[in-house]
Amino acid sequence: MRYDFASDNTAGMAPSALRGLVEANSGFAAGYGADEYSRKAADEIRKLLDVDADIRFMFTGTAANSIALSMLANPYEAVLAHHTAHVCTDETGAPGFFGHGVGLIGLPGYSGKIDDESLCAVLDEPVVGHRQPPAALTLTQATEYGTVYSFEEMDLLIRLAKGQGLGVHVDGARLANAAAAGFDPKALGRMGVDILSLGGCKAGAHGVEALVILNKSLSSRLDNRLKQAGQTASKGRLLAAPMGELIASGEWLSGARHANAMAQKLASGIEDDTPFVLAHPVESNTVFVRMPDESLTALRAKGFAAYAFDDGSVRFVCSWATKTEAVDELITVLGQLG
Amino acid sequence: MRYDFASDNTAGMAPSALRGLVEANSGFAAGYGADEYSRKAADEIRKLLDVDADIRFMFTGTAANSIALSMLANPYEAVLAHHTAHVCTDETGAPGFFGHGVGLIGLPGYSGKIDDESLCAVLDEPVVGHRQPPAALTLTQATEYGTVYSFEEMDLLIRLAKGQGLGVHVDGARLANAAAAGFDPKALGRMGVDILSLGGCKAGAHGVEALVILNKSLSSRLDNRLKQAGQTASKGRLLAAPMGELIASGEWLSGARHANAMAQKLASGIEDDTPFVLAHPVESNTVFVRMPDESLTALRAKGFAAYAFDDGSVRFVCSWATKTEAVDELITVLGQLG
Amino acid sequence: MRYDFASDNTAGMAPSALRGLVEANSGFAAGYGADEYSRKAADEIRKLLDVDADIRFMFTGTAANSIALSMLANPYEAVLAHHTAHVCTDETGAPGFFGHGVGLIGLPGYSGKIDDESLCAVLDEPVVGHRQPPAALTLTQATEYGTVYSFEEMDLLIRLAKGQGLGVHVDGARLANAAAAGFDPKALGRMGVDILSLGGCKAGAHGVEALVILNKSLSSRLDNRLKQAGQTASKGRLLAAPMGELIASGEWLSGARHANAMAQKLASGIEDDTPFVLAHPVESNTVFVRMPDESLTALRAKGFAAYAFDDGSVRFVCSWATKTEAVDELITVLGQLG
Amino acid sequence: MRYDFASDNTAGMAPSALRGLVEANSGFAAGYGADEYSRKAADEIRKLLDVDADIRFMFTGTAANSIALSMLANPYEAVLAHHTAHVCTDETGAPGFFGHGVGLIGLPGYSGKIDDESLCAVLDEPVVGHRQPPAALTLTQATEYGTVYSFEEMDLLIRLAKGQGLGVHVDGARLANAAAAGFDPKALGRMGVDILSLGGCKAGAHGVEALVILNKSLSSRLDNRLKQAGQTASKGRLLAAPMGELIASGEWLSGARHANAMAQKLASGIEDDTPFVLAHPVESNTVFVRMPDESLTALRAKGFAAYAFDDGSVRFVCSWATKTEAVDELITVLGQLG
Repeated sequence: MRYDFASDNTAGMAPSALRGLVEANSGFAAGYGADEYSRKAADEIRKLLDVDADIRFMFTGTAANSIALSMLANPYEAVLAHHTAHVCTDETGAPGFFGHGVGLIGLPGYSGKIDDESLCAVLDEPVVGHRQPPAALTLTQATEYGTVYSFEEMDLLIRLAKGQGLGVHVDGARLANAAAAGFDPKALGRMGVDILSLGGCKAGAHGVEALVILNKSLSSRLDNRLKQAGQTASKGRLLAAPMGELIASGEWLSGARHANAMAQKLASGIEDDTPFVLAHPVESNTVFVRMPDESLTALRAKGFAAYAFDDGSVRFVCSWATKTEAVDELITVLGQLG
Repeated sequence: MRYDFASDNTAGMAPSALRGLVEANSGFAAGYGADEYSRKAADEIRKLLDVDADIRFMFTGTAANSIALSMLANPYEAVLAHHTAHVCTDETGAPGFFGHGVGLIGLPGYSGKIDDESLCAVLDEPVVGHRQPPAALTLTQATEYGTVYSFEEMDLLIRLAKGQGLGVHVDGARLANAAAAGFDPKALGRMGVDILSLGGCKAGAHGVEALVILNKSLSSRLDNRLKQAGQTASKGRLLAAPMGELIASGEWLSGARHANAMAQKLASGIEDDTPFVLAHPVESNTVFVRMPDESLTALRAKGFAAYAFDDGSVRFVCSWATKTEAVDELITVLGQLG
Repeated sequence: MRYDFASDNTAGMAPSALRGLVEANSGFAAGYGADEYSRKAADEIRKLLDVDADIRFMFTGTAANSIALSMLANPYEAVLAHHTAHVCTDETGAPGFFGHGVGLIGLPGYSGKIDDESLCAVLDEPVVGHRQPPAALTLTQATEYGTVYSFEEMDLLIRLAKGQGLGVHVDGARLANAAAAGFDPKALGRMGVDILSLGGCKAGAHGVEALVILNKSLSSRLDNRLKQAGQTASKGRLLAAPMGELIASGEWLSGARHANAMAQKLASGIEDDTPFVLAHPVESNTVFVRMPDESLTALRAKGFAAYAFDDGSVRFVCSWATKTEAVDELITVLGQLG
Repeated sequence: MRYDFASDNTAGMAPSALRGLVEANSGFAAGYGADEYSRKAADEIRKLLDVDADIRFMFTGTAANSIALSMLANPYEAVLAHHTAHVCTDETGAPGFFGHGVGLIGLPGYSGKIDDESLCAVLDEPVVGHRQPPAALTLTQATEYGTVYSFEEMDLLIRLAKGQGLGVHVDGARLANAAAAGFDPKALGRMGVDILSLGGCKAGAHGVEALVILNKSLSSRLDNRLKQAGQTASKGRLLAAPMGELIASGEWLSGARHANAMAQKLASGIEDDTPFVLAHPVESNTVFVRMPDESLTALRAKGFAAYAFDDGSVRFVCSWATKTEAVDELITVLGQLG
């Protein structure tokens, strides 16, 4: 079975990330992140985002998101999220586990973007003792359906939330792809985002995400929090260095540009050369296709792993490692399925 | 500052582990552990331990231990552990976090080994509603003080616990060092251990430990459990392969043999050429030394990081990467401090 | 403001419940439920339900439901419930708090009853690691909208759930009203219900519900579980006795019959003498009325507290204490609002 | 078996408490504490303590303590408590359950009072990532061994804790007895206590304690917190009224005075007329006696329930309901055991 398009996580580590690991691997160093590589990687992120933030490296996006949300909402409160957000649909309830029962309120909106009127409606509801009132908003950039919020769209949602005293988290598992699509990562700080989960894994690293705490009043005893949550690497330099080098080398962004370009090529090919229709606008590195069940079965029979999504479409994902020929091949095969 | 002896986690990845990572890094593969590298690494562990166990790879020992204990004890129950065990003193209360308040009952015993009479005394206490009765026993092999349980010692403790219906977990963060000291890892299965945290990181890998579930009745919905706990690597092959290759290459054991030999050399040197006294028997890769505060300060001033332990002694740890000359150097420096 | 119809919890204790309290209040008794009154009350419940169940008394329905669900589903699993069930909408996320993140999956169905085809659809979904798979079904009898499952309806849902290995909980906060409407409480055991939250408070007691564990394999260390959850009364006799006497006296059922009759009278009056329409079938003690916002405002201005429900209707609830004249008065006032 | 001296919870409700309940039981009232009786009871407590505090009524001291501590310490932090405090030894780990793994650090000190030098030693320890640093101090007044902190003693401990930024909780399950022994409850506010668990049950009520939040910055969304924790009474007036009337009538204090006097009488009798020795100073309503196992067995054989305490002594507790003749009888029986 071919996994090229099954997810951006089926690729390996990008060259710069692997190089970063190998370079950091020599000699001895202080553990638990108190080393030069970790410091440097954090500096790279602060530069990338143009923020003075507290930064820690952890292993998974699920943990980064859940821990971030637990910093913004108490167990008897809730987090507002698009109902298709990763925290709602793909993390086995991790926010409730790390947040001791914290609630999630799913909001609607086309193609993964939260509809601002729906947000207003929820924010206007009176607080009553028998419900979990919202204490935070989480936004995904790029979204689960590969769309990318414009500055204005995201800024509006954040201002609405902040206006009611909510904290704001951004799930940036694919922030590199949003950046490659034109969204300026430096805007997050200006918008007042409190915490960012900055994706390393989908961008070309492995087993590392950065927790970027822009609102430093939330950082109290952060190391205790992460250690208790099983997210502290003893060989911290080896966790941080690949992500630091991925960013420092420019591959964080160039890899995402490549992935986005491959997705555009795939989308065009599908529209031009296959009978299938796109389910969502293709704005970053994912392509969603409306496809009957028999076609999906036939595609798999031809050796392509593909993910049947919750909205009934089939998802194809490109990454830094996606090959042009593979895209051509997939288009050809899809064309034959029609 | 030199970190050679500060911990076994200040070393990098051993050659075989790094090689395993690089080899697994090419091409695309299924995510979340459903790949050939993960399967092969699990097979290596089953062979090493001679067991038919369910195996998953996770990122930290803290998570592995805590999740294991949450499989053996409910929130209203407790786990018996040596009072100096890592779960009691070095994990920021992670067992209570992952186990939703599960209790820890610390037991005494010389140099990190649980005293069997103390265990009996606790097991004999009547269950009352206002206390957390013990539901599991956790043993550390090698112990936090570097001692190694003999088969007979461990077997006795396990039989006592099993006799009262308790589950048994082994924290094997340094099982390689115990094995190098003569403890047969294959004995764990015969003794009836339910779950093992098998250390990868201290043995020469990075950011990976194996959860080895010998009692497969505990494995239900294991993938959901780990995903919720933030311990599922999307690029699973890159998590598993280094540990697999570390074991397959024989370096898991040979590295530990080297570490233990360095510790023996250091201990002999301290006894012969310094005024200091050993605080605990040196049976694996750690050396504990009784040392006045001024000496520790002076040692650090000479550039050696060293860890002041809870019992008032100073800990030195050797690893696969420890150099003979460094040991000689340390002995010389210690001799000058006298 | 008049609270007669705001909830069945705005009434006080019924005569028999208060008498039970006063009788149990003399002299000294063993604490924590190890007394004769607690034993007798448990026996009354076993007789009422014709089951050999483990029974404990606790303070609130929220706690009873949440603890029951935590006995049936692990944190990485989910509970299936009608999307309007009390556990979903009125307990501030308590199931997630007591169950350490356990998920709730809301199912549709008219007037509070779970639609069996929707249940089948969820049960047929494959288990995947990144979702919380269902481990339990909870049914509310009478439902949040006052409807009552027939034996056949409930039995079908339970058989479907049990067929997939799920545990079954019944929220019987208003089981007395269901019984008064013709549902035989003795059927619960025959259907294979595992745990029942048996309502005391709405039936005429105060601050007491019974946790009825029909599947006694779930009862292990129950007293430890309840104590840890803050649900153990030290003066246990005073918790149990009112509920025991409520049942022994027959008022548990007769009070519910009265409440149901008052609701029927109110419903008829609304249909006959007011311009308003009923929103749901009136089968127990609650009456839901479609009413424009101005009418609700006007009603409150006339001194009647009334609860605006999630479906946009207005709820009126009758209890053992509802007076005929009050019903007449309410009908008259509603007629004048038209 | 006679339970007079087994605990202060083996007595029933005091006359004023029962009267408060009966009076509040007529007619209809708003639920969930939004009623006149709840308001009045809260006012009584504010008057008793001379504080402007937020007050809620809940069912058990275990819940009150645990919820209070969860307001002062995060899961990755710890609470300092005397190692014999109720939260450490008698609540089945409830603080960890409600506080999602929050730690407890047990401190030494004679007869249940925390030793101030030990407190200083813990407060002086550096914060490290792998431990749970203290975030709160909890004091019990009167203590588990019946001793009573003087103003100076308690004030010193609180100042030490506050000096390091810790929050302070007081477990006042037996505050009435401390007050009857001369401790001014109004001093708590002046000392800077943040939260108080004010005991109702042991003082003569049933199933009710008050959570008194002197530091109102902690009160945010308190009703949501309590509802989620299963501690919100729907018939709130019936929860609050007995405690309100207990205080308003003066029985809260006079009952405790009686209990303390009975304990003094018992202690004198034991010293004068039995061969047994007191284990702790008798300063409130509990009497601890050193007694060989055979004597305890013989005492029970004569029909007196008595509680064997953790320190090896036997505890006798007096309450508002203890009868003089019963004390005489117990002394006589103890004298015969010698």
